[in-house]
Amino acid sequence: MRPAHRMLLAGAMTSAITGQLAAQASATSSDNRDNHIVAKAVRTAEALRDQMVTSDRAFDVLASLTTEVGPRLAGSTAERKARDWIIARLRTLPLDSVWTHELVVPRWERGVDEAEIVSPHAQRLVVAAFGFSVPTPTEGLIADVVRFPSLTAVTNATADQVRGRIVFVDRRMVRSQDGQGFALMGRDRGEAIATASRLGAQALLIRSAGTSQNRLAHVANIGYAPGVAPIPVAAISNPDADLLAAQVATGTPARVRLILRGHNVADGVSGNVIAELRGSERPDEVVLLGAHVDSWDLGTGALDDGAGVAIVLEAARRLSELRERPRRTIRFVFWGAEEIGLRGARAYAARELTALRQHVLALEPDQGAGRAYRLRGQLRGRDGAEMLRRTADLLAPVGIDYLPDPSIAGPDLIPLREKGIATLDVALDMTTFFDHMHSSNDTLDKVLPADFRISATAYAVVTYLAASWPGPIAGTSGTP
Amino acid sequence: MRPAHRMLLAGAMTSAITGQLAAQASATSSDNRDNHIVAKAVRTAEALRDQMVTSDRAFDVLASLTTEVGPRLAGSTAERKARDWIIARLRTLPLDSVWTHELVVPRWERGVDEAEIVSPHAQRLVVAAFGFSVPTPTEGLIADVVRFPSLTAVTNATADQVRGRIVFVDRRMVRSQDGQGFALMGRDRGEAIATASRLGAQALLIRSAGTSQNRLAHVANIGYAPGVAPIPVAAISNPDADLLAAQVATGTPARVRLILRGHNVADGVSGNVIAELRGSERPDEVVLLGAHVDSWDLGTGALDDGAGVAIVLEAARRLSELRERPRRTIRFVFWGAEEIGLRGARAYAARELTALRQHVLALEPDQGAGRAYRLRGQLRGRDGAEMLRRTADLLAPVGIDYLPDPSIAGPDLIPLREKGIATLDVALDMTTFFDHMHSSNDTLDKVLPADFRISATAYAVVTYLAASWPGPIAGTSGTP
Repeated sequence: MRPAHRMLLAGAMTSAITGQLAAQASATSSDNRDNHIVAKAVRTAEALRDQMVTSDRAFDVLASLTTEVGPRLAGSTAERKARDWIIARLRTLPLDSVWTHELVVPRWERGVDEAEIVSPHAQRLVVAAFGFSVPTPTEGLIADVVRFPSLTAVTNATADQVRGRIVFVDRRMVRSQDGQGFALMGRDRGEAIATASRLGAQALLIRSAGTSQNRLAHVANIGYAPGVAPIPVAAISNPDADLLAAQVATGTPARVRLILRGHNVADGVSGNVIAELRGSERPDEVVLLGAHVDSWDLGTGALDDGAGVAIVLEAARRLSELRERPRRTIRFVFWGAEEIGLRGARAYAARELTALRQHVLALEPDQGAGRAYRLRGQLRGRDGAEMLRRTADLLAPVGIDYLPDPSIAGPDLIPLREKGIATLDVALDMTTFFDHMHSSNDTLDKVLPADFRISATAYAVVTYLAASWPGPIAGTSGTP
Repeated sequence: MRPAHRMLLAGAMTSAITGQLAAQASATSSDNRDNHIVAKAVRTAEALRDQMVTSDRAFDVLASLTTEVGPRLAGSTAERKARDWIIARLRTLPLDSVWTHELVVPRWERGVDEAEIVSPHAQRLVVAAFGFSVPTPTEGLIADVVRFPSLTAVTNATADQVRGRIVFVDRRMVRSQDGQGFALMGRDRGEAIATASRLGAQALLIRSAGTSQNRLAHVANIGYAPGVAPIPVAAISNPDADLLAAQVATGTPARVRLILRGHNVADGVSGNVIAELRGSERPDEVVLLGAHVDSWDLGTGALDDGAGVAIVLEAARRLSELRERPRRTIRFVFWGAEEIGLRGARAYAARELTALRQHVLALEPDQGAGRAYRLRGQLRGRDGAEMLRRTADLLAPVGIDYLPDPSIAGPDLIPLREKGIATLDVALDMTTFFDHMHSSNDTLDKVLPADFRISATAYAVVTYLAASWPGPIAGTSGTP
């Protein structure tokens, strides 16, 4: 049994002590009325936490999404089906409004991807085209392979090394709890593709992100720089990258045949679904909790970002069903087309310019379904700091610590941060997340209900307390 | 650091003590000359153990096989390539003879396997045809799914349940170190197929063996009982079986479209490669160490049974390069066509009838590449027991215990056991073996060199001591 659970067993006693300490500390920073409001909000948050942390309802929501919708590529009818599924769930809740913003997005469809080493030792390879990769010629292409240790190395390649060849980028991702190794896997990708094309490479084969030992390729979105001839780009599974590297290492030129059939199709419609729970005291201030609806095409998008959708939906249910409304308005946002360039989130930021001025704080769980372990971020002002301290106290008993690191998760929050809106995140354990996301292995069985409970609880608690806090927190017009 | 390694660090001292104890114990059971021979053999075995346990040469052999040959389905040109690769390696060793027995085997080739749920919620499924499954009609078949908890349940089905449907067998394998859960996954499979066909089922979808959470199907060999109309049979990956079960559980009939394109092709040639190291004192007595050459088609057959091939090849190298020949003849046997019904092993037993009478003992590593943890088996007579006790003493310092359980591993040993030949095995840890074997995930990266060293060492040591033992051990003409 983990310490977090032992502490929960102390139940009512722990809550009482936390409440007392909270009340004492708060007395120095707010007037009596605010003290009372904070104490009451903390008690409500405690009750919310203690109910949610023993409930699998968020998991059940995720099971339903992955069973009934499954993969939902941006702009596809499956993504529309996911929006309809979300709206149907929201309609059952006592929310004030639910609406959709549609947007037109480019669309791409995967074909059958094939690759094989033809020499020195013929063997099949497991590959998958990156999203929006151009296809190879119909009959495929055959070329010698040149291996580079990283994308950055490709950007420094010479034409002699690359011309007429397939560029094989053989960088391994490092596994870590905070998943930072993933960011390095994409760095310089656009530039490497452009360089390879300019120097006359025929295609790129890039070792899959993630540390999985499965023969499944891990894809992502690519774009081609203007003026660069687009060349096919595919991910190769880690075991197949090992095999290819071993054949390259024999010294005999390794030749590979590659057929990618994915291609652009007519634009499609994506969209954001937005649900609002109006605040009781400061309805013009908005706390946003969002996640993205679309997924890659290979898995059922359980981790990326079905988990986030389920967390947000369950928070919407719990918070809308509370006896008393939070003081601020809460927006539950379900963005479309994240995977193909944050298109839903950018459209949201552009369309909601007026509302954005009222956005106080934004959060997005988009880190899989691992166990929450850290509240992360900083807020300006005495109230922001105090609110975070209280939130940290609320989350400590379920095994979540607090560090004032900059909040980094939530790609859909980038357009909001660009507008100066404060963000927080609850970091979920990403040790194995990247092994599955963006591959066909992104499925429900990778979610451990006991971990996911903690994560769903944390996001609901943070959102609730931020929306209920009486004083000005970061990003409000009242903040210095 | 594991105890086994700590003990090895004691090095020379441990060896000296073991040697003394061995010499004392042996005095009660053999004459002085035999005492001397045993002590010397134990010293040689200790040196062999201590050299092998710090060497990655067996791993390097396996890396070469998987890189240069890869998948090698029975009867294919790839299997022939594997035999040539083995023969080339054997020819570099000071063995007395190397020969091949060819045999004609039925052959089957996989096509592209496809499946999808068409209702209630359309989603793709990852499936793979069982070896020798008949194909579906070219356009595929569509039928409602009926779920059964086990193959045995299918054998008790009624026509009403099954007629016109796809039978979905949803039994999960249990993970264990000795891998016994795997045996249960195949039990009643032939009868279940026959029953389903007789009752009018259109096809079978069987949850993959292994406990892996990967979207990779795990295949095996099937046969159709005489007089039964053959129906298509496919394995479905565990996550996809979860999804299908969840859709079946909704209560709305789940319909699946299935296309299997694998089919029988013209017979091919398989074969056994046999290498002999003639004994110095009892050349007419044979200790056999074998493994199988063929693999399934999806992975590179690193675990099944590339690991065994590498163990046997490395034992052949180590034992043939010893300064003194073992007293008995050692046969290193590389069987073909194991996966499609022990065809190579049965041909060996039939062709080598005369030689079989001289077979004293047989071993086959065919349990993946996990760490050896247990010597298993019993031998008749005082010498057999004493030889096993000495072997156990030799293996204890590398973390291998001894239990007189019946030897169970080594499917190719079945035809030999049927002829009354004694077998032993060194059990390798199979906790994760079945997650990978028979799937495309059976690749080199699943092998941990530090574990594989122990396993290669153990098989060489047992084989050496059995071949060097002066007294009659089980199965010899001299044994009561």
